[in-house]
Amino acid sequence: MERRRRVGGWGFEGESFPPSAELLAWLEERVGPPEHSLPSAAAPPPAIPPRPLPGLPFPVSVDPLDRLAHARGQALPDLVRLRTGRVPALPDGVARPDSADQVEVALAACSREGVRVVPWGGGTSVTGGVNQLPSDRPSLVLDLERLAGLAALDRHSGLATFGAGTAGPALEAALTAAGLTLGHFPQSFELSTVGGWVVTRSSGQESLGYGRIEDMVAGLELVAPAGRLRLQALPASAAGPDLRHLVMGSEGRLGVVTSATLRVRPRPASTAVEAALVADLGRGLDAVHELVTGGVPLTVVRLSDPAETRVAMAVGLASSRAAGLVRAWLRLRRQGEGSCLLLYGTSGDPETVRTVLGCARSVIRRHRGTILGRNPGRHWQRDRFRHPYLREGLLDLGFATDTLETATPWSAVAGTRERVAEAIASALDGEGERVAVLCHVSHPYRDGASLYFTFFFRTAGDADRTVARWATCKRAATRTVAAAGATLSHHHGVGSHHAPWYEAEVGPLGREIVATAARLLDPGGILNPHVLLGPVDRLEE
Amino acid sequence: MERRRRVGGWGFEGESFPPSAELLAWLEERVGPPEHSLPSAAAPPPAIPPRPLPGLPFPVSVDPLDRLAHARGQALPDLVRLRTGRVPALPDGVARPDSADQVEVALAACSREGVRVVPWGGGTSVTGGVNQLPSDRPSLVLDLERLAGLAALDRHSGLATFGAGTAGPALEAALTAAGLTLGHFPQSFELSTVGGWVVTRSSGQESLGYGRIEDMVAGLELVAPAGRLRLQALPASAAGPDLRHLVMGSEGRLGVVTSATLRVRPRPASTAVEAALVADLGRGLDAVHELVTGGVPLTVVRLSDPAETRVAMAVGLASSRAAGLVRAWLRLRRQGEGSCLLLYGTSGDPETVRTVLGCARSVIRRHRGTILGRNPGRHWQRDRFRHPYLREGLLDLGFATDTLETATPWSAVAGTRERVAEAIASALDGEGERVAVLCHVSHPYRDGASLYFTFFFRTAGDADRTVARWATCKRAATRTVAAAGATLSHHHGVGSHHAPWYEAEVGPLGREIVATAARLLDPGGILNPHVLLGPVDRLEE
Repeated sequence: MERRRRVGGWGFEGESFPPSAELLAWLEERVGPPEHSLPSAAAPPPAIPPRPLPGLPFPVSVDPLDRLAHARGQALPDLVRLRTGRVPALPDGVARPDSADQVEVALAACSREGVRVVPWGGGTSVTGGVNQLPSDRPSLVLDLERLAGLAALDRHSGLATFGAGTAGPALEAALTAAGLTLGHFPQSFELSTVGGWVVTRSSGQESLGYGRIEDMVAGLELVAPAGRLRLQALPASAAGPDLRHLVMGSEGRLGVVTSATLRVRPRPASTAVEAALVADLGRGLDAVHELVTGGVPLTVVRLSDPAETRVAMAVGLASSRAAGLVRAWLRLRRQGEGSCLLLYGTSGDPETVRTVLGCARSVIRRHRGTILGRNPGRHWQRDRFRHPYLREGLLDLGFATDTLETATPWSAVAGTRERVAEAIASALDGEGERVAVLCHVSHPYRDGASLYFTFFFRTAGDADRTVARWATCKRAATRTVAAAGATLSHHHGVGSHHAPWYEAEVGPLGREIVATAARLLDPGGILNPHVLLGPVDRLEE
Repeated sequence: MERRRRVGGWGFEGESFPPSAELLAWLEERVGPPEHSLPSAAAPPPAIPPRPLPGLPFPVSVDPLDRLAHARGQALPDLVRLRTGRVPALPDGVARPDSADQVEVALAACSREGVRVVPWGGGTSVTGGVNQLPSDRPSLVLDLERLAGLAALDRHSGLATFGAGTAGPALEAALTAAGLTLGHFPQSFELSTVGGWVVTRSSGQESLGYGRIEDMVAGLELVAPAGRLRLQALPASAAGPDLRHLVMGSEGRLGVVTSATLRVRPRPASTAVEAALVADLGRGLDAVHELVTGGVPLTVVRLSDPAETRVAMAVGLASSRAAGLVRAWLRLRRQGEGSCLLLYGTSGDPETVRTVLGCARSVIRRHRGTILGRNPGRHWQRDRFRHPYLREGLLDLGFATDTLETATPWSAVAGTRERVAEAIASALDGEGERVAVLCHVSHPYRDGASLYFTFFFRTAGDADRTVARWATCKRAATRTVAAAGATLSHHHGVGSHHAPWYEAEVGPLGREIVATAARLLDPGGILNPHVLLGPVDRLEE
């Protein structure tokens, strides 16, 4: 039985991840009791009649629910607007091309008639990357779901070519049948697609072992209004700039990625994730730094700060034996308040996994960590794609939550975490609201790591005010990130949310290089015009 | 005592690597006895008076020898032209800026007056990347040798910032003092520079362990006529296209790289390279494939084809005990004619090195290889930066030699080697000359490997005819590489030699993207105008 995507919320209908009583108690303590609950399903927006679109040699849906389902991504303001019927614009139609040729035809027709085009993969952008915003020009969504599946497999070279609309589970199923894996497991894995991964520079939870999507893309095809760019699969090249890296991160602004040739690997026999507790964040960071620079071949490393550690226990471990152990340990040690949860895991044949985890344990013990064993890791593995559902249950009750992330060299990790967390925590002081902030360090590299923040506040009485609270937090965080010289995004992209700060990261000349490429590839400026290069702050739209 | 660069040949004055009698005998057998020797030093070219250059606030040299020393790179035609005084153009001056500001001033002045600028690092391009060609516009070389040295070290993040003009030995010396290494060891290591590595996507001989220069660049600064592009050091980012990858490979066409922040590592206690013989190329390729995809953490893997194996023995092992062993082995085994030399090595603490080499040995033995031990590897390590001198001694005698390389997915490695080698070997059939071709597979990746070809032929009676022979070989090879869908270059760049085929690799739209960026960054088109985007075949100029 095929699962149906939920409109106006994360994931599939019927799925949920209800907040535990412990989490709710913690939230009430941190931000106060909720005051305004939200409708739990998408409310019908005011009727917006579809405007005429160019004729295409394949069907274009103008079904109201289809249009609503393709109006917004999955950031908090998107959910709030969808649930309250306050969506300011809908696409005028949704086209589902089944080939690169059909994409080309659609782009030509839309270029001719000045119709905006938003390429659509899994629709999971949390940075306003696929949002419809009001415009005089009509808008067509190109949903790539029919451009899916394994198109070619070169087993000896470890290269698999997939249609851009292939979602995570279908991709891994096709590879599993051949004894292979891509190893790309972003939290959005069940919904997001190859094309979306490529154009947002996605990074999966096991990136320490398998690399980011950039490391996996050997070749790709981009269809733009100005023509096609086919970059053949190559292990490496010194033949000029690497144009794959211009397409990767282009967020639908330079063209539509129609397929990608990805580096795949033999499927590991087993994956195991363990947990440890370290006495404080400083020691945890030292342990992670040593694990990564020392070359212990882990695929996952994730260190929660003290606040996230408490919440992780309240959310994920509530029902497990491990939680009992952890609480006992916390009682035992007086410094428990500052303790940090460290997850670390690897993949391979069972013996390799045992050896590698053994190495990791000895590093962690050297940093005075206490090994908790596999139970917390098993919970994390089981629930890791379900965590986004938690947000839906919290919104039902009147707690708003969203996430943002950055990355920075090791020397700046601790300081950036502190400054960004403080900026978010105090963002709503002006209106007397509190914000709770959690953070974890993950995706470590030899030269730095990412910082992933989750923040919570109470929803306001109406959608616009709730979105305004969110925007205030987001602006405070992004300003602080940019001032710290950290990146606007480690794996969520620029979208429309970060676009006003894009120049702060790459400079005016850097922005102009990308804008010039966009003018060349899309002379009519029809492609996803609000993302990446749009200088206007559209957080509240 | 500082060593002086030789003008008109590789490296430093007084250094040489004379061809052994065995090598000469092999060459005579393969291409015939030499007919025309070449002068062994640079001949003074016809006097070309320097044209006026814009005034700059730092000295510009118009010394004839300085101009000659900055007229050409190090490809075979460059050496032939320099040795015979047949250099068609000289730069009108050589400027040595000592800061990014001075580079900026020079670019502004040259843009204003329409003076061409060739950025110069080590001058070791073997693809016509720094060549002076006749033009109505004057030409200034920006030699970056004063923009050198360690500018900043962030030890905790493993990041070191170097001036673009820093050459390999100075870079490693600065890092060694801090217990660190970059691990980037191209054959040109003693001469080439950080800036040159970055703009040509250089790859060192230990790239299997340390990665390509692309993997090492965390941040950089580019000074262009249109302004500066400063990309801060980040471990990773999803904030739009990665503009580092537009600068990397830009070959001086988009601006002058003035500094780069590189990912460095603790200096390993030891490095060891061993050798084995495998019965034929097919088995050797299978062994290399298994070593790499099986994750044996080697830093060097290099598999010579049967012809290169014979030459390697004649050149490098002539005087070693190992050579005796090898010859004995060859006599012993009747299939010796097809045997292939496999070098494999790694770095780390001695115990790790022992363990890793042990793993490698067991893989190689499974492919019926015979382990030769460390002697051949020691020779290779000792001589690896001296091999280019060999070409000088051969030219003295009347044998011309050059190299070219490509990379392709594993499935195409064997076929591409065969077709390219055959194309080169038969290139001069029309004029009754024979060409000897050697090849090795190196720089292996999970999804493919590079193929490195060395070819030999007899010099003709005059410079132009010798260059024409070389160009005929080069065209035959490049046509075949492009038709095979392999890359024009794995680590030598496009330069002016491959520029006519650049569009075959990235398509017309890909080429136009880079050309558009060049027009934005360098509106006057002053920067290194013949490389990368020049469509005209200039092999014989």
